[in-house]
Amino acid sequence: MFKDDKNLLQAEIIAIGNEVISGLIQDTNGRYLSKQLHLLGINVPRITAVGDDKGSISEVVEGALERVDIVIITGGLGSTHDDITKEVLAQIFNSKMILDHKVRRMLEVSFKKRSQEVPKNVRSQYEVPVDATILYNEKGTAPGFFFKRDEKKLFSLPGVPLEMEHLFDAYVRPDLKKIQKGVIGHRIIKTVGLTEASLWEKFGPVERLERLVTVASLPSYLEVKIRLSYCAESLEEVEIRLGEAEVMVMASVGKWVYGKDNDSLEGIVGKLLKDKGRTLAVGESCTGGLIGHRLTQEPGSSRYFLEDIVAYSNEAKTSRLEVSSALIQKHGAVSAEVALSMAEGIRKTSGADIGLSVTGVAGPGASNNKPTGTVFIGISEERRSNFEEFRFYNDRRRNKERSAQAALELLRRWLMNY
Amino acid sequence: MFKDDKNLLQAEIIAIGNEVISGLIQDTNGRYLSKQLHLLGINVPRITAVGDDKGSISEVVEGALERVDIVIITGGLGSTHDDITKEVLAQIFNSKMILDHKVRRMLEVSFKKRSQEVPKNVRSQYEVPVDATILYNEKGTAPGFFFKRDEKKLFSLPGVPLEMEHLFDAYVRPDLKKIQKGVIGHRIIKTVGLTEASLWEKFGPVERLERLVTVASLPSYLEVKIRLSYCAESLEEVEIRLGEAEVMVMASVGKWVYGKDNDSLEGIVGKLLKDKGRTLAVGESCTGGLIGHRLTQEPGSSRYFLEDIVAYSNEAKTSRLEVSSALIQKHGAVSAEVALSMAEGIRKTSGADIGLSVTGVAGPGASNNKPTGTVFIGISEERRSNFEEFRFYNDRRRNKERSAQAALELLRRWLMNY
Repeated sequence: MFKDDKNLLQAEIIAIGNEVISGLIQDTNGRYLSKQLHLLGINVPRITAVGDDKGSISEVVEGALERVDIVIITGGLGSTHDDITKEVLAQIFNSKMILDHKVRRMLEVSFKKRSQEVPKNVRSQYEVPVDATILYNEKGTAPGFFFKRDEKKLFSLPGVPLEMEHLFDAYVRPDLKKIQKGVIGHRIIKTVGLTEASLWEKFGPVERLERLVTVASLPSYLEVKIRLSYCAESLEEVEIRLGEAEVMVMASVGKWVYGKDNDSLEGIVGKLLKDKGRTLAVGESCTGGLIGHRLTQEPGSSRYFLEDIVAYSNEAKTSRLEVSSALIQKHGAVSAEVALSMAEGIRKTSGADIGLSVTGVAGPGASNNKPTGTVFIGISEERRSNFEEFRFYNDRRRNKERSAQAALELLRRWLMNY
Repeated sequence: MFKDDKNLLQAEIIAIGNEVISGLIQDTNGRYLSKQLHLLGINVPRITAVGDDKGSISEVVEGALERVDIVIITGGLGSTHDDITKEVLAQIFNSKMILDHKVRRMLEVSFKKRSQEVPKNVRSQYEVPVDATILYNEKGTAPGFFFKRDEKKLFSLPGVPLEMEHLFDAYVRPDLKKIQKGVIGHRIIKTVGLTEASLWEKFGPVERLERLVTVASLPSYLEVKIRLSYCAESLEEVEIRLGEAEVMVMASVGKWVYGKDNDSLEGIVGKLLKDKGRTLAVGESCTGGLIGHRLTQEPGSSRYFLEDIVAYSNEAKTSRLEVSSALIQKHGAVSAEVALSMAEGIRKTSGADIGLSVTGVAGPGASNNKPTGTVFIGISEERRSNFEEFRFYNDRRRNKERSAQAALELLRRWLMNY
């Protein structure tokens, strides 16, 4: 919610279904819809998930219709006995059910394509509340519905994300665009390598930033995101203001900023490698392949990513990466010396310009007298090399993730010549 | 919600934070808590997400306290100005703020370890509502709170998942165990290799299963989960009934079942390798390291997982995996022949008992005349080998995930001698 948000249109989102409240599935529709509504300048003060229960649905929907201008419901429109959204809405809007011939025709055509008759239970989809506008669904069997009460709008959409998004695009967004009063814009600045506290300490007094935009920071064990938000009448105004705020952030903590909005660290590193015409090979141990997996999430990564050796055993470190067994014996497999040797080994044997390596103890339990979370990262080019030591205090999975993140960040700084 | 759930204790979950309702982050706490409460026989009819707004929080919390026996709140306990949960709760419960010396001591010790003073803004954490029981947080700076009103219980936990889970384990679960009235049990049966429709076709009429338990199936692009649910007075009754239902499922589609509940495919494969005393090495291409990453998520995987070569370039396939360039030239890097040669190459050069390989086109775009989603998986042992061909129709990320899943499933069947 933002300073001026009381002047904006307000919407609530309601997710219906036992599968959501019982924890069987993660509802992602709420997040999707909230983002879309913000882009239309509509504020979302509340998202509610409720089961397939007539009384609860009715109470939540009636409450939302009292509080806000727009209500968007997802789920409960299927054809099994626990799908009761349509029935509850018909009651709320005091609307009789009638047969809709277009829904019927669409279903018949769709099943005919697969040489099937329309199954009996699906026929209940033909019935629609007479006071609703039908949102015909080309991507599934359940149509959506639009109801109006005075100036309030209610959209009921299927719960399957693909169908929900389809009907939002086809009906909801065009309709809401007509009543759009402003734009809420966000910019996410993504930082890595500093804790939330040190980040703001380096930034200095946050008030000067807060005079421009609404500020939120979101720490996780991998990175800290700063969200800048602004709400104005036009997208242009929003963009200008967010741009000013971004410049202020970059001026003080830009060194720790790897990207913004939808950027990923592996995407930024990939772009740097491509721009500089360098190739990369990776030698991993405790991360088990995660660095290679992340680097290859980017389309076109084959242009700079040559290979990745996950040398989990000491034998593999020796045979594949030319790390001498004497070195391993002397310093242990988890050591700066072995990390550097792995980075050099993968670079030389692969023929890549840059070699990147990770060796560490993911846990649980110590290994070779090194405690869980001890991680060394090495990087090697023809004329220079470097290593960093980390001590993470997490479980196996997070230690792997933090190690991969630290390795990609070291590579980014290396390529930026920091 | 289940047949007898009106007799059970009822709880609502409330997630507080602008980051949740604006779509900046996906709230996963609601799902976690709902699962945990079910295990305690507590039904969750509603989950609400609400912003950092005093009026909204107050309204949602008061409403929940009227409707249900137990309210669990997550988020809004940090030390920045938009964290107002503590303040709102103090108002609702008409409770003054006092200084808590244990919170103070814990924070001082924790910052001292890092040779830092407690930052000014964090000091607000010392203040706690006098009527609350403090839930001391060893994993973060914000303590949680427990309030009671008549027979109703309210727990307020931090929003950071790690801290939330810690306080749930330490305080909430032990407390709720004391008032537990029944048990809602779920069993998830995890299948791979069949679509949802073919799975139920092979199963036959589902009614016989539904007479025993509540049934839900949850398809994704990687696998289909079947959830069996039952609610009774004792865990024993629940377990017996779920066991009967599980036997019925296994009898008809057991071949496609790789595990249940918290089992992961990589965990099951790891267990099979360990039990049979075999070692594994992997040669990946389009999956980029994802198979190695998944295999090494398991603690102790170093016992059977020797190494993984991500041979992204053709040169790496030749130099590392001894795939002849003539073979690549003749059949293309994405072919059954190359997959088999990669599997044999990684097995021989690593000295592992089993070699597993993947080569494919993750996309976007075709490669060497092979359309996006074409994937070959190879497996090699000393006396036998095999391959499978797949055609996935997804985007790059999903194609990678489906390929890794298919490879691990082929390995599982191989080890099961199917």
